[in-house]
Amino acid sequence: MLLLVFGVSIFGLLFAFFLTKYVLRQDTGKPEMRVISDAIREGANAFMKRQYTTIAVLSVVVAILIFVLYSIFPNADYPDYAWKTAVSFIAGAVCSGIAGFVGMYVSVRANIRVASGAMTSLDKALKIALRGGAVSGLLVVAMSLLGVAGLFTLFGGNETTPLMIVGFAFGASFVALFAQLGGGIYTKAADVGADLVGKVEKGIPEDDPRNPAVIADLVGDNVGDCAGRGADLFESTAAENIGAMILGIALFPVFGMNGILFPLVARSFGIIASIIGVMIVKCREDQDPMDALNRGYYVTAVLAAIGFGAATYLMLKEFWVQYTLAGLIGIVASVAFGQITQYYTEHRYRSVKSIAEASQTGAATNIITGFAVGLESVGLPVIVISLALIGSYWIGSTTGVANGGIFGTAVATMGMLSTAAYILAMDNFGPITDNAGGIIEMSKQPEEIRKKTDRLDAVGNTTKALTKGYAVGSAALAAFLLFSAYMEEIGKAGITGIDLSKPIVFIGGLLGATVVFLFSSLAIRAVGKAAYYIINDVRRQFKADKGIMEGTSKPDYASCVDIATKGALKEMILPGVLAITVPILVGVALGAEAAGSFLMVGTICGVLMALLLNTAGGAWDNAKKFIETGEYGGKGSDTHKAAVVGDTVGDPFKDTAGPSLHVLIKLFSTLTLVLVSLFLMFKPPF
Amino acid sequence: MLLLVFGVSIFGLLFAFFLTKYVLRQDTGKPEMRVISDAIREGANAFMKRQYTTIAVLSVVVAILIFVLYSIFPNADYPDYAWKTAVSFIAGAVCSGIAGFVGMYVSVRANIRVASGAMTSLDKALKIALRGGAVSGLLVVAMSLLGVAGLFTLFGGNETTPLMIVGFAFGASFVALFAQLGGGIYTKAADVGADLVGKVEKGIPEDDPRNPAVIADLVGDNVGDCAGRGADLFESTAAENIGAMILGIALFPVFGMNGILFPLVARSFGIIASIIGVMIVKCREDQDPMDALNRGYYVTAVLAAIGFGAATYLMLKEFWVQYTLAGLIGIVASVAFGQITQYYTEHRYRSVKSIAEASQTGAATNIITGFAVGLESVGLPVIVISLALIGSYWIGSTTGVANGGIFGTAVATMGMLSTAAYILAMDNFGPITDNAGGIIEMSKQPEEIRKKTDRLDAVGNTTKALTKGYAVGSAALAAFLLFSAYMEEIGKAGITGIDLSKPIVFIGGLLGATVVFLFSSLAIRAVGKAAYYIINDVRRQFKADKGIMEGTSKPDYASCVDIATKGALKEMILPGVLAITVPILVGVALGAEAAGSFLMVGTICGVLMALLLNTAGGAWDNAKKFIETGEYGGKGSDTHKAAVVGDTVGDPFKDTAGPSLHVLIKLFSTLTLVLVSLFLMFKPPF
Repeated sequence: MLLLVFGVSIFGLLFAFFLTKYVLRQDTGKPEMRVISDAIREGANAFMKRQYTTIAVLSVVVAILIFVLYSIFPNADYPDYAWKTAVSFIAGAVCSGIAGFVGMYVSVRANIRVASGAMTSLDKALKIALRGGAVSGLLVVAMSLLGVAGLFTLFGGNETTPLMIVGFAFGASFVALFAQLGGGIYTKAADVGADLVGKVEKGIPEDDPRNPAVIADLVGDNVGDCAGRGADLFESTAAENIGAMILGIALFPVFGMNGILFPLVARSFGIIASIIGVMIVKCREDQDPMDALNRGYYVTAVLAAIGFGAATYLMLKEFWVQYTLAGLIGIVASVAFGQITQYYTEHRYRSVKSIAEASQTGAATNIITGFAVGLESVGLPVIVISLALIGSYWIGSTTGVANGGIFGTAVATMGMLSTAAYILAMDNFGPITDNAGGIIEMSKQPEEIRKKTDRLDAVGNTTKALTKGYAVGSAALAAFLLFSAYMEEIGKAGITGIDLSKPIVFIGGLLGATVVFLFSSLAIRAVGKAAYYIINDVRRQFKADKGIMEGTSKPDYASCVDIATKGALKEMILPGVLAITVPILVGVALGAEAAGSFLMVGTICGVLMALLLNTAGGAWDNAKKFIETGEYGGKGSDTHKAAVVGDTVGDPFKDTAGPSLHVLIKLFSTLTLVLVSLFLMFKPPF
Repeated sequence: MLLLVFGVSIFGLLFAFFLTKYVLRQDTGKPEMRVISDAIREGANAFMKRQYTTIAVLSVVVAILIFVLYSIFPNADYPDYAWKTAVSFIAGAVCSGIAGFVGMYVSVRANIRVASGAMTSLDKALKIALRGGAVSGLLVVAMSLLGVAGLFTLFGGNETTPLMIVGFAFGASFVALFAQLGGGIYTKAADVGADLVGKVEKGIPEDDPRNPAVIADLVGDNVGDCAGRGADLFESTAAENIGAMILGIALFPVFGMNGILFPLVARSFGIIASIIGVMIVKCREDQDPMDALNRGYYVTAVLAAIGFGAATYLMLKEFWVQYTLAGLIGIVASVAFGQITQYYTEHRYRSVKSIAEASQTGAATNIITGFAVGLESVGLPVIVISLALIGSYWIGSTTGVANGGIFGTAVATMGMLSTAAYILAMDNFGPITDNAGGIIEMSKQPEEIRKKTDRLDAVGNTTKALTKGYAVGSAALAAFLLFSAYMEEIGKAGITGIDLSKPIVFIGGLLGATVVFLFSSLAIRAVGKAAYYIINDVRRQFKADKGIMEGTSKPDYASCVDIATKGALKEMILPGVLAITVPILVGVALGAEAAGSFLMVGTICGVLMALLLNTAGGAWDNAKKFIETGEYGGKGSDTHKAAVVGDTVGDPFKDTAGPSLHVLIKLFSTLTLVLVSLFLMFKPPF
C-alpha cells in the first residue's frame, strides 16, 4: 500500500511537471505585454525571496527551540522525539515553501500566456489558466502525501510513528501562517495604495500604467492568493493526513496498519480524480466558463467518491460501506460549502442585492448591511459542519468498533479534502486570469480580447470565493480531527476530557477566542500601515515627476514593489508572534486541559470570524460590481461611491485577516499537538 | 439576617420614593420647554404601554409553557417545581417591567427639571440628573433584593429553595431581553431616521424642531438607555443573587444558612453605600462634572468594600479575611472595566485619535480602523476577567473548604455588583442630560444655558460608555456564577463536566457561538428596517407640508413616534425568539452537557462580541466629536463627513446589538438553569 502511495504521489509530481511544460510551451504574446509580465515576475520574485529569507530564519529558530526543549524535557513515550520533531518541522516548512514558490513560479508565467491565449480562443485561455493553477494544486497535494509517507517510512513505519511526524504539519502551518499573512498584507496594501492615490486622488482608472503602484498591485494578486492559499491548503492536507493516521492508531486492534495507511491511500485516489477533472475541462466560445469549471469539479467529486469506495473496500474490509458513506458526507459537505458561499456573495441572491440597495442611502448603510450579512452567513456553514460531524460520527459508531465514531469523522474530513487538488487549481485560476486581464488592459489590447479576459476574471472572482468557503470548512473539520489526536495524547496522562466548567479551563477557552479577535485586529491594521507607506511613495512619485501623469515618463514601479515588500514583511511579524506565543503560554501556565480548551474555543471563534470576514468582504466587493453593471445609478453615482467604501473595507477582511484565520486555526492544533507532552509536565495551579 | 435584608430593601425603595419627590418638586421651567418635555413624555408612555403589552403577552405564554412542561415532566428533586417556577417567572417579569417603567417615569420628568436647573447653577442641574437617575438605580437593586428574599421566604426558606426561584431571574432576563432589544431598535431607528433626512437631505441641524422625527429621537434616548439598561442590570443583580445562593447550598455543611443568605446581606450594604455616594455628589460652577461623579463613585466603592468586610465578618466567620479579599477583587475589577472602557473610547487616548486620523483618507479607513480598535479592545477586559476569576478562586480555595474556590468567584461577583445602584444612577444620568440639552436647544434658550447642558451631556456620554463596560464585565462574572449553579444541578444526574472533546458537546459550543453572531446580525438589521419606515414618514411629511421647513407649521411628531414604536416592536420579535428557542432545541436534541457547552461558549463569544460592538461604536462616536472640536479640519470638512459614516455605523453596534448581547448572555444562563431538569430527561444520541 505504501508503494501505491509513493507511486501516485510521484505520478502527481510528474504530472505537475508535465503541466508546467504545457504552460511554458504556450505563446507569450506581444512585446508590450511581455514588458508588463516581466515586471510582475520580477516583483513577485523579489518579494518571495525576501519573505522566504525571513520565514527561513524564523523556522530555523523554532526548529532549534523544539530540539533544545525536547532534549531538556524528553518525551518519555517516544524515543528520539526531539530530533525527529525538529527534522519533521523543517521538512514541513521546506515543502510548504516549495509549494508556495512553485505555485507563484507558474502563475506569474501563466498570466501572459493566458492573455495571449485569449487572442486565439476562450477555450485556450481557460485551459492555460486552469492547468497553470493545477500545477500548484497537484504539487501541494502530492508533496504533502510524499512528505508524510516518506517521514512515516523513515521514522520506523509503525504505530508510534504518526505522532513523531506532527512536526511536519506544524512546520507547514508555521510557514503557511507567515506566507498568508505576508502575502495578504502585501496584496491589500498595494491594492489600497494604488486605488487611493490613483483612482480617488488622481482620477485615473484601475490598472492604468501611469500609476506607480500598479505593478505592485498585480504582484500582490500572486503572492496573496497563489502563494498564500497554496501554503494554507498544503497545511490542511498534511495536518489531516497525520491527524487521521493518529486516529488510525486507536483502531490498530481492528484494522492493523491499514487503519493508519488508509488516509494516504484515499488521498492517492483523490489526486488521480483531480488530474482527470482538470484535463477534461473545455469551453466553447459562447459558454459560461464557470459551467466548464463546475463540470470538471463534479467529475472530480464523483471520481473521488468512487476512489474512496475502492480504498475503503480494499483496506477497511467489512466496514467499507459505513466508511464510504462517511467519506461521501465529507464530499457532499465540500460541495455544500461552495454553494453557501455563492449564495452569500453572488449578486444573483438577496444578500448582495440588499447591500447594493442599502448603498443608495450612503456608505454607512452599505457597511451596516454588509456587516449584518457577514454575521448572518455563519449560520448555514455551521449547520453543515454540525451535520457532517454528527452524521459521520454516527455512521462510524454503527460499526460497533471502539473509536469507530471518531474515525468516522476523520474519514469525512478525508472525503472533504479528496478534491483539494482540483479546488486549488480553481483557486489559482483567479489570480492568473486577474493578471491576464491587467496585462491586456495595461498594454492597451483590442476591446474584444479584453472582454474575454474580463469574463475569465469574473469567473476567477467566483472561484476565489468558493475556495475560501472550502478552505474554512476543511480547516474546521481538520481541526476537529486534530482535537481527537490531542485527546489521545493527553488521555495517556489521565486527562480524559476538556471540562469547560473548571475555571482554569474556561479561562483557556476565553483566551483562545480572544486571540482570534486580537489576531484579526492586528492583521487588519497591518494592511493600513503597509498601505500608508505605499501611498506616500506614490504621492512622492507623482509630485517629483509631472511627466508620469502626462504619460511621457515611466513611473518607478520597482520602488513601490520594494516598499510594499518591506512593509508587508515588517507588519506580518506581530500577529504571527501573537498566534504562536499565546497558546504556548496558556499551555505552560494553565496546563494541557486549558490548552485544549484554548484550542477548541479558539477554533470555534476562528471559524466564525473567518466566515464573517470572508463573506462580508466578498459580498461588499460583488455589491460594488453589481452596481457597476448599471444598477442603482451605475458607475460614478453616489450609490457607487458608497459601495466603493464597502469594497475597500472588505479588502483586508477577505484577503488578509480571513484567510490568515484559516491557517491560525490549524496552527493552534498542530502547535498544541507538538507541545502536548511539554504542557503535561506543568501541572495547572488548581 | 433576613429581617436586615427586608429592612434595607424597603429603606432603598423609600429612598427612591424620596428622590422621586425631590425631583418632582423642582421647577419645570418655561412654557415653551414644557411643550417639548410633554411631547417626549407622551411618546415614551405610548411606547412603553405598547411594548409592555407585547412583552406581557409573551411572558404569560412562557409562564404557562413552563407550568405545563413541568406538570407533565415533574422535577423529581423539587416538589411543586412547576407552579413555583411559573410564579417566580411572572414575579421576575413584573419586577423587571416595573423597574424599567419607573426609571422611564422619572427620567422623562427629570429632563425638563435639569434643563430648568441649569438656569440656576451647574450644581443644581447635576444633582437633579443624578438623583433622577438614582431612583431607577435604587429601585432596581432594592426590588431585586426584595423579590429574591421574598420568594425565598415564601417558598420555604431552606436549602432547596434557591433553585425554585431561578424562574425569577429567568423572568427578569426574558423581559430585559425584549426591553433592551425594543428600546435599542427604537432609539437608533429614530436617530438614524432623524439624521438621514434632517441633517443629510435637508441640511437642518440636530434637535431642530422642524424635523418630524426629533421627538421620536429624544424619546428613544429614554426607552433605549433608561428602560433597557435598567432591566439589564435588574436582571444581573437578580441572577447573581440567586446564583450565589445556589452555590451557598454547596457550602451548607460549613456555613449553614449563612452561606445562602450572605449574598443578600452583602447586597444590602451595597445599597446603603450607593445612597451615600449619590447624596454627597456636588459640583462647583468651574469644576468638571465628571470629577464630581467620580468622587461619588469612589466613595461608594470604598463604603461598599467596608460593608463587604462587615458582612463577611458577621456571616462567614473564620474565613472572613479570604472572602473580603475576594469581594475586593470584584470591586477593583469593576473600577478596572470603567478605566479600560474610557481608554478605548475617549479622544484623549490613542484609539480614538487613530480613528480620527484615519478619517482623513476617507470613510473606508475610518471604518477599518474603528473595527480594528473594537477587535483589539477585547484584550484587556479578558485579562481582567481572567485574573478576577483565578484570583478569587485561588483565595477562596485557601480556606480549604470543599467548593470554597468556586464560592470565592461568587463573592467576587457580589463585590463587582455591590456598586450597581450607583452605576445605574450614572447610566441614567446620560439620557436625562441628553434630553435636557435637547429641550434647551429646541426651545431656543440662551447660549450660556446651552453650554452648561452641553457639558453635562458630554459627561453623560462618558458615563454611558463606562456603564456599558461595567454591564458586560458583570454579565461575564454573573454568567460564570450561573455556570457553577448549572453544574451543581447536572452533577446530581451524574454529569460531572462539560467535555468539549465530545462531538455532541463541541457542536453545542459551536452553536452557542453561532447564535451570538446571528442574534447580532438580526439586531443590527432590525435598526435598518425600522429606520426605513421612519425615513419614509419624515420624507412624506416634508413633501406634504412645505410649511414645516419654513417653520410656519408644526410637524406631526406623534406620527413618527407611532411608526418608530410599531417598527421597533415588530423587529424585536425575531432576534428574541431566536435567542430563546435555539438553546431549548440544543438542550432537548443534544442533552444537558451540550446545552452547558452552548451556554459557556455562547457566553465567551457573547462577551467578546459585545465588547467589540460597544467599543467600536463608542470610539467612532467620539472620533467624530473630537473632529467637531476643530481637529483635522473640523465640522463640515471631508474628514468630518468620513467620521459621520463611522458614527452612524456604530449606532446600532453600541446601542442596539451590544447592550442586547449583555442580556442574551444571562438569558442563556437563566434559561438553561430553569430547564436543566428537562434537558436531563433527554439522553444525547451518543
